[in-house]
Amino acid sequence: MEFLKVSSKSSPSSVAGAIAGMIKDGVHVEIQSVGAGAVNQAVKAIAIARGFLSPIGIEIVCIPAFADIDIDGEIRTAIRFVVEPRFMRGLTAAEREEYMQLDSQRYQPIFSE
Amino acid sequence: MEFLKVSSKSSPSSVAGAIAGMIKDGVHVEIQSVGAGAVNQAVKAIAIARGFLSPIGIEIVCIPAFADIDIDGEIRTAIRFVVEPRFMRGLTAAEREEYMQLDSQRYQPIFSE
Repeated sequence: MEFLKVSSKSSPSSVAGAIAGMIKDGVHVEIQSVGAGAVNQAVKAIAIARGFLSPIGIEIVCIPAFADIDIDGEIRTAIRFVVEPRFMRGLTAAEREEYMQLDSQRYQPIFSE
Repeated sequence: MEFLKVSSKSSPSSVAGAIAGMIKDGVHVEIQSVGAGAVNQAVKAIAIARGFLSPIGIEIVCIPAFADIDIDGEIRTAIRFVVEPRFMRGLTAAEREEYMQLDSQRYQPIFSE
């Protein structure tokens, strides 16, 4: 599994560009951050990526989780964010169903996990 | 609009308990954090809340956005997280459709925004 590793020095807009590109290509996006500064940059990147993707009809959501990782022999707690497309907010049931169809055609690799 | 205001000194597990309770009650959840330490505590709270809710079949996702807020006459950039239930990961198309039905019955206030 490859992660986008984000540090407190990462540029949120560069990371946002990477997220948007991967989502458009139907690639699974997972971000890893260690420490408050890094988590903050990752969250900013996701918020910016939403702005890149929403004009083309893709709404993304994120799912944070803890992960114990080994950094130079020391166990640290990282935050991992799975970022995925979703098309449901503010839609009627019929519209949602239609989008789910589109969704499963376009994003099969992501939803078939 | 009421927000759960999270600071760098907030306890992630207390905030997680509040999130889980609101989600179970079908209440719209929106968290506001200013600064890296506060954003980090908010993300930890969401990750912990996932652990409270997933055993009862509720999976939550979060949607981060920027917001300019006024703190004592000074404009600061806050991060706001909308936290919402979702039931779709790893399901077949038929299962997803079934859950969407349940979903719209149980969480009408959230999805009718």
